[in-house]
Order: sequence, then structure tokens, then C-alpha cells
Amino acid sequence: MEGIEVKQTGTKNKVKRSFIDSDIHNYTSLDEIKKYLPRVYRDQIDLWGWRLPGSLYLNGGIKGGQRADSIPPSGGFPGSDLDFIRKQYLDPFNVEYGILTGSDYSCQATPDVDYAAAISTAINEYTLEQWVEKDNRLKGSILIPKQDPELAVKEIHRFGSHNDMVQVIVASGAEKPYGNRFYHPIYEACVEHNLPFTIHVLMEGVGVNPPTTGAGWVSYYPEYRATRPQVMAAHLASFIYEGVFEKFPTLQVVLQEAGAFWVAPYLWKMDEDWKALRFQTPWVKKRPSEYFRSNIKVSSQPLEPTPNQEMFNQMMKAIYAEDTLLYCSDYPHWDFDSPSNTFPKLEDSLWERIFYQNAADLYKLPARKDFKEEIH
Amino acid sequence: MEGIEVKQTGTKNKVKRSFIDSDIHNYTSLDEIKKYLPRVYRDQIDLWGWRLPGSLYLNGGIKGGQRADSIPPSGGFPGSDLDFIRKQYLDPFNVEYGILTGSDYSCQATPDVDYAAAISTAINEYTLEQWVEKDNRLKGSILIPKQDPELAVKEIHRFGSHNDMVQVIVASGAEKPYGNRFYHPIYEACVEHNLPFTIHVLMEGVGVNPPTTGAGWVSYYPEYRATRPQVMAAHLASFIYEGVFEKFPTLQVVLQEAGAFWVAPYLWKMDEDWKALRFQTPWVKKRPSEYFRSNIKVSSQPLEPTPNQEMFNQMMKAIYAEDTLLYCSDYPHWDFDSPSNTFPKLEDSLWERIFYQNAADLYKLPARKDFKEEIH
Repeated sequence: MEGIEVKQTGTKNKVKRSFIDSDIHNYTSLDEIKKYLPRVYRDQIDLWGWRLPGSLYLNGGIKGGQRADSIPPSGGFPGSDLDFIRKQYLDPFNVEYGILTGSDYSCQATPDVDYAAAISTAINEYTLEQWVEKDNRLKGSILIPKQDPELAVKEIHRFGSHNDMVQVIVASGAEKPYGNRFYHPIYEACVEHNLPFTIHVLMEGVGVNPPTTGAGWVSYYPEYRATRPQVMAAHLASFIYEGVFEKFPTLQVVLQEAGAFWVAPYLWKMDEDWKALRFQTPWVKKRPSEYFRSNIKVSSQPLEPTPNQEMFNQMMKAIYAEDTLLYCSDYPHWDFDSPSNTFPKLEDSLWERIFYQNAADLYKLPARKDFKEEIH
Repeated sequence: MEGIEVKQTGTKNKVKRSFIDSDIHNYTSLDEIKKYLPRVYRDQIDLWGWRLPGSLYLNGGIKGGQRADSIPPSGGFPGSDLDFIRKQYLDPFNVEYGILTGSDYSCQATPDVDYAAAISTAINEYTLEQWVEKDNRLKGSILIPKQDPELAVKEIHRFGSHNDMVQVIVASGAEKPYGNRFYHPIYEACVEHNLPFTIHVLMEGVGVNPPTTGAGWVSYYPEYRATRPQVMAAHLASFIYEGVFEKFPTLQVVLQEAGAFWVAPYLWKMDEDWKALRFQTPWVKKRPSEYFRSNIKVSSQPLEPTPNQEMFNQMMKAIYAEDTLLYCSDYPHWDFDSPSNTFPKLEDSLWERIFYQNAADLYKLPARKDFKEEIH
């Protein structure tokens, strides 16, 4: 049995500590989803297809971006077979909880918002029935038709009271940066249900969304990957400068799959500019880095590789990793970050925050069950 | 007389070393420019105005973003009076050479490319006659109608042989990222005339350019400032992944006024992704950081303030500052970085590269004249 080996302080026993993975991509098959849609949409799909925007770029790995070894023995799509996910990842790696983030956010980039709402509901029902209710370790994300905040709020109310649906999720590609007051009704609903708002890279530059960068579309997949932190950076500044955390002080926002260390120089400069220009946005009462530390979480995957341990330590400090960083594997994507090689050397207490406690606090999950049982 | 005080190694004398400032904004008055335009455009302007896009945001300082003390005694616009610039900045700070970057790039965001070309020519003639030829320390930038590469190339050929026009300049806001092959004829002309291609923040999200971010327009000026490195990051990745430096190995590109330290985590991740995905872009033969080090220069202004000297040192190393960093003051803008307080402690040899040699090599400028004369 593989797993994480961390030396426990004061003992020579090695403990395979369990952890929380905040980003597992279960495959969302549109064929499966279709059954959950109202008849009118099923008929429309039969007549005119799905009409949903997709990526403009290549990917890595196989099958649209998956690990080569993640095809289940059944032959289905990577991430589609719960038994195989258990065998390949959840059991051997000793995952205590896994947050499912799905795989198809394309409905969030269609101009037909009612259709987007119907697909969101279908995906949420499917996720609950076919995944979350079948394994106690798995928790779900509520996909919302975020192009229309009124419909998005309805979706949050529909699933927000379900204990196993632990966050609201949106794609990073957006018509407006997420701090914009257009979206504030969504945050009111998130706060009411005590749900984090998670932004996951995807759908930048497609469908109703503007070009990927302030200089238009990029040409290639590695270049597209490089744009992801840029769009996420826009969302981060937007939350701060629109005063979202003054209006909704308990709102937690997760920036997922766009790296983490870009945040450091970004905050250094934003703090300086805030000091010089705060008279222009007097509703932003605290330094940007303070809001970041209290209201933002960042995904560890894909972590920028630092040139040395000293730089790594400094960067972790600069992004307040003990409060803000969440371990994410991105399973079963090709650039999966294994819990054992995501980080260079980590202090034990910091490991504990990143691999368990930050996520447990965020998602209101219980303390680790098997900590002591695992000594061997 | 004020100036830079740097301890010379092996002596107790303090030397006021001169330096090269690679970003001085002389004011480009449209009223002045108009005289240089052909009659057809003067008539059109009289009838229907200038029809040029401008900023959507506030700024700092006064008069559209200038230092409060930069209004000349004549009462003109900051940066408009050469005598006052000499008295306030060039003489007391002991500037050996100053690269003029102008102040109005709006013609680069109009859809009327012939008009853009006419204004570019007018501004270039004005800059040469009214500025560059009046002070040996000042060097000019060739503004080009970059929306139309054919016209842009003509403009480069028009001024490219003039020794005092030392670079081609474009605004960061663009219809396509600058590595795109659409622009390659421009680089062919730059290489022919041995001119760097400089991208200066401005015009993002206005005129023909797409929204400022992959999530649309941001709302406020400090937030807009935060988007600048994002757009510059898109250009940087574009040059690398489109193979521009394989096609034009001697081309030098300057990223101006978007900060510098964001480059570090950006390169760490790009290098990693290049390694994993290089089969998709086989024309990118070297690691992104290698192209960065050999073909890119970065403006020091506005430098992200690091939390401590150790982090500063690490970041300088991570961006290969000794080869890539150019001191820029941004005079007379409100966020002017004085040569004496831009950086924390710098090694003498590194100071020399950033404040003189990197720019001298880039712009083919002679060695410092007054190094020894200034001992006192």
C-alpha cells in the first residue's frame, strides 16, 4: 500500500497520514447528464446538438487531457468509474476526503442562460446521485449558471442545504471579473449557505467569454496554460477592489488550478498601489494581502517549481501558505500532482495545514479519522 | 547637486555615477502634432475631432497622471518643457542618456490604419525635431501603426536609420499577442535596423483592443494597474511559443512599465510546461527562461517591493537581472521611481549593469563619459 510518509514528531514510527484532496475530476458524460434534463432540452439536443463551446487548444496526456493509466478496465472514460478511482487513487493514497470538481463547465459559457441553468441542475443531480451518495469520502461542487445571477442563486438554494455539496463552482473564463457587483447576489447566497465560491480554470476565451488575454487569443496549449494565472489574477484583484470582502466578510473564495506563487509579487505590488491610491477606492479598508490571507484559498496544483528550497520557503511564506494553500491533485488529469512529490521539504505543521486542516475548515469536514490507526 | 551616491570599491571617495534612464515620458501634445499631419487629416480633425480612444480609468498624481511638482514654470503640461526637464531631472540626477517614450499611443488603437500611420509619422518627426535634436542626452522611440504591419514596416524604414531613434515602440494593448506571426514583418524590419522592439503598458481594453483581461473589463484604476503584468505576460509567452527568437535570434524585446518580479514564477512554470509539452511546439528549441535571458529586457519601474533583502536578492537572480533589467524612472509620472530609492541594497557590479551597461548594449550607446570627472 502506497501513501504519504511523514515522520511524526517525537517518535520513530512512520505514519501514513490521510489527507483531503480539494480537486478530483470525476468525468461528467453529457450522455449521462442528458437523462437528467427536461424533455424540451432533450428534444432540442436531438434536433440541433449540444451547442456548447469547447477548448480551442490541444491538451496533455490522452483522452482530452488525462493520465495515460487512468482509463478504467471497463474501457470507459478516465474519471468515469468510481470503483477504479477507488483502486487507483482513493484507497492506495489514503484519501480521507475528496472534493469532486466535475469536468464539464461548458454550460457556463453559453448565451442561453435557461439552458445553462437546466444543464447545471442536471449535472448537480447526477453528481449527487451517481458520485457523492456512493462514497462517504466524496463531496460535490454546485455548478451554477453564473451568466445569470438570479438563476445561479436559485441553483445554490436548490443544493446549498445538502451537506455533501460543499462549494459553488465556476469556470475562470467570465464575461466580467468575479468581484463585479453583477455577481453579488451569488455571494449573498453562498454566505447564506456557508459555501465557498470556487473558481476553476476553464472556458477562458470561448463562448460568451472575451479573448483569453488583454491582447487577444493565444495560439498554443502551453501558451494557454500560461494565461491561466493571468485570468485568475484579474479575479483576485476584482474581489479586493470591488469591496466584496467588506460586503461579505465571511465569504471564502478558492482559486483553483492556476498555480500559487504568482500571487506573491502580485500582492507586493497591489499592497503598494493600495497605499498610494486608496483614496480612489475608500471601501477597500485593508491591504489587499490582508483580504487575501483571510478570504482566499489557493490550489497547490499546478505548483510553480522553485529553483531551491530557500526560495520555496520564502514563496510559501509570501503567499501565507499556512492559511491559504489547499492540496489539490487534479486527478486524473495528465499533470496530476501526487501528494508525495508536489512539494519539496515541508515542516510537519505546514503539511498538516495544507493537506488537511485548511480544507477541513473551509469545507466543514471532520477531523482526520485514521491518524492513529495508521501507525505501523 | 543631487545624484546617485555609490561607494566605489577600494576607495572612500563617493562618486555620483551617471546612468541611463530607459523610460522618460516627454509630453506629446496633439496640438503640436497636428502641424506635422497632412492637410487631409487636419481638415478631418477640424470637422470631426481626433477620434482616438483614451483611458477608461482614473490615474494618480495630477494632469492625467503626473508628479505634482512636474508642471513647468511656463505653466505648460508636465514633460512638455525641455528646459524644465533638464533642471528638474536630467542635470541634478546626472542622467547620461534618457530614452524618450512619448505619452500618446492612442493612434495604435484606432481602426483607421492610414490615420494611425499618419499620426505615427507626425509624432516621430516631432520627437526628432523638438526633442532628440535639442539635447544629445535624449534618444527617441519610433511609434508605429502596428495594427497594419505593412505600414508599420514603412515607418520603421523611414526613421530606422536615424542614429538617435533607438527603438520601435508599441502599446501593450493589442489585437493579438505580439509573438503572433501577424507581426513578424515588423521584427524583420527591427532586425534589419538593429532596433529593439519595446512594449509599453497603455491602451489595454480600449479602441480596437479586446477587454483588459480574460474576464472582461476591470472597474478601477488600481485594479487596471494590476492587469498590466498580465497582458505583458501574454506577450512574453507569445514571443517564446511562436518561435520568434528562433526566427529572429538577434531581436531584443523590452517589456516596459509592468513590473519585473512577476516574471520569476511565470518562467518557473513555463520551463516546466515546455519540458512536458515541447512536442506540441517543436520549433521552441530552448527553455523559455533561456530565450528570456538572451532576448528580453524588463523595465525596473514599477518594481514590486519585496518583503526583505533576501527575497529581493533571490528575485533579482530569478529574473536574471544582471542581463535583463533596465533602470527606468517613468519621469514625470506620479509613480516616478527615483534612481536612489528604486532598489534596496545592490551589489556594485549589478548596479552598473542595471543603471548603465544593459541599456548601453541594447541601445548601442557609448560608455559613460563622466565617471571619473565626478569624483569630489
